[in-house]
Amino acid sequence: MTFKFEITHKDPATRARLGKFTTPHGTIDTPNFIFCGTKASIKGLSAQQMRDAGTDIILANTYHLMLSPGEELVAEMGGLHEFMDWKGPMFTDSGGFQIFSLGYGGITAEIKGTGRNMRPKTILKIAEEGAEFRSYIDGKKFFLTPESATDVQRKLGADLIVQLDECTPFNVDREYTSRAMRRSMRWGDRSLAQHKRHDDGKQVMYGLVSGGVYEDLRIESAEWTRDRDFFCTAIADCLGGSKEQMYEVVAMCAPHIHPLRPVHLLGIGSFIDIFMNVRSGMDTFDCVHPTRIARHGAALLKGAPGERISITNARYLKDKTPIDETCGCFTCKHHTKGYIHHLFRVRELLGPQLVSIHNVFTMNRLMRDVRAAIKAGTLDRVQKEWVP
Amino acid sequence: MTFKFEITHKDPATRARLGKFTTPHGTIDTPNFIFCGTKASIKGLSAQQMRDAGTDIILANTYHLMLSPGEELVAEMGGLHEFMDWKGPMFTDSGGFQIFSLGYGGITAEIKGTGRNMRPKTILKIAEEGAEFRSYIDGKKFFLTPESATDVQRKLGADLIVQLDECTPFNVDREYTSRAMRRSMRWGDRSLAQHKRHDDGKQVMYGLVSGGVYEDLRIESAEWTRDRDFFCTAIADCLGGSKEQMYEVVAMCAPHIHPLRPVHLLGIGSFIDIFMNVRSGMDTFDCVHPTRIARHGAALLKGAPGERISITNARYLKDKTPIDETCGCFTCKHHTKGYIHHLFRVRELLGPQLVSIHNVFTMNRLMRDVRAAIKAGTLDRVQKEWVP
Repeated sequence: MTFKFEITHKDPATRARLGKFTTPHGTIDTPNFIFCGTKASIKGLSAQQMRDAGTDIILANTYHLMLSPGEELVAEMGGLHEFMDWKGPMFTDSGGFQIFSLGYGGITAEIKGTGRNMRPKTILKIAEEGAEFRSYIDGKKFFLTPESATDVQRKLGADLIVQLDECTPFNVDREYTSRAMRRSMRWGDRSLAQHKRHDDGKQVMYGLVSGGVYEDLRIESAEWTRDRDFFCTAIADCLGGSKEQMYEVVAMCAPHIHPLRPVHLLGIGSFIDIFMNVRSGMDTFDCVHPTRIARHGAALLKGAPGERISITNARYLKDKTPIDETCGCFTCKHHTKGYIHHLFRVRELLGPQLVSIHNVFTMNRLMRDVRAAIKAGTLDRVQKEWVP
Repeated sequence: MTFKFEITHKDPATRARLGKFTTPHGTIDTPNFIFCGTKASIKGLSAQQMRDAGTDIILANTYHLMLSPGEELVAEMGGLHEFMDWKGPMFTDSGGFQIFSLGYGGITAEIKGTGRNMRPKTILKIAEEGAEFRSYIDGKKFFLTPESATDVQRKLGADLIVQLDECTPFNVDREYTSRAMRRSMRWGDRSLAQHKRHDDGKQVMYGLVSGGVYEDLRIESAEWTRDRDFFCTAIADCLGGSKEQMYEVVAMCAPHIHPLRPVHLLGIGSFIDIFMNVRSGMDTFDCVHPTRIARHGAALLKGAPGERISITNARYLKDKTPIDETCGCFTCKHHTKGYIHHLFRVRELLGPQLVSIHNVFTMNRLMRDVRAAIKAGTLDRVQKEWVP
């Protein structure tokens, strides 16, 4: 069997656990973090630079790739792994999140409940068959169904793929959320059926737990995934309007999902959120956060207020020390805060690259620390070191 | 002695020669190419990536660094080598070229005679004492003299520094060129005197051959540098309006400069120009060309029409081969033209980075080939391979 998920250790005090997740492109230890290579590239870094920074697994976004260069081209080029020179395990989403979040006029603000409600912009129609939307690049119409989302992902060729869902915005009522959840279940069944129809042992599918912030819906959705033949589970859909609500929503799903399957939490990536959700049994996470904030000069820093420092702050003008003396990344081994501050000030491309390398390395280091802490039973203490 | 220039081989058929140029930061073989790290960064690449691409020597621009972050700050940070983590030999110019070229309203178009004559924009005054100009960043006034240009370069701390000159635009008459040349000579004497006053064995200075396209002036200027105690010579000032005129101007200087000093040709970097000017005895070259064109998707290619291919061309959409099958650079070992084409199409920062690595490697490979060809007496044949 090419895929395997083995739980090697359970924290007696929480739901936290250690696992080994085997795919045709290698085995990763969990908990782990999946970096976003949206358009088949981690912004500013090569696959080799990602490996050098200790990365085990990355993802690419189906939505962006189906628009450009298109899944047929990626398939002709040998699939995502070969296309982008990534040799390890890889994940693609279904495209649903982007269709609905871009469709509602804000990238993630709306889904995450942090922005005001905007009218749909690129979604043309949501029907039982699927969702019709316009390309944000050239306005061309696309129609995505559970079957086509699965086919596109098969052509892209990642190891881990995801069922199509209708991702609901924050602040929609229980009634709308319930209807969307039920459609997501039907779309999940169709996605899984399509996956099974062409299953060649090279991919496994995530079933999605939706239901917004409503406990009964979340439980119903979690049980639905548990009772289907998905290899993995992912917590999707709106997670509420605050960190506390997010932790609650994840905790409400956790006892009802399949206990032996790997669980992914979509779109979450701050230190504190990873610690809190690891405690609910989450095995993997993804977020654009580490590389996105890097491009604005925010360097992740263990123990710092807000989990980061802003390298553009004038206090670093003459700073001869690395971002983090205890960090072993390329950036911290070679460059000072003073130099990186200069690079941002004069807008040299090397600045974002150096901070991105540091942030990627730091996330991988965080996950190593989390795993060691689970094993040693020191999750509380290690969490306090990272997030005092 | 920390500095040494040794000519190890002379081509019997031309003025081409092989040399070993020793500096406090190491010895480089000549002919060689000096890459432009304008603001203390090769655009998009770290010093380590430059080393990995086989680079021996780089430069930074005094003009840009005196405006931001300022030479005092670079000195406080330990000098340019330490500031940017470059361990090899390093060169700074005097700032004169940028003051006059930016001052005349076009970066290099005017000096190189490829643009129309524009009125001065940031130069406020050129007087015997020095040149007053405005910062292009914040409008602040700066006054650069031969003494201050030398002091700034001492604080920046490169191994190789340059006298201040008044760089004349193309199409100015003989009279203006002659007056500017004489002033450059006086500025050169003052630059050299200032350098000698603080000489601690860590830097050596280039005397500049100016005189525009006028043979008698070029000869007079070349002899002036020869008779002064500069360690190196550089061919500066306007080199004419065509490649042919440039080769002629360089060839007219060559017999009159000091035959035992290293000679730099400022601002030249195409394959053909390097071959042609190596034949006139030029030892080093610099140009923004290899990294600038990379950012627009132009990849240098041995033997190609125009010396390059444009990776953004639709013909590379599904191309599974590297830019150059015979190239050993990181980019060609890991990535296909199809992938790099995709990166440029979707505007991923990795695209310019990958092509920059390739172009830097290719320039270094070119210089290795040039040196081997001089040694083997095969310059004609090797030139035809690179520029059929």
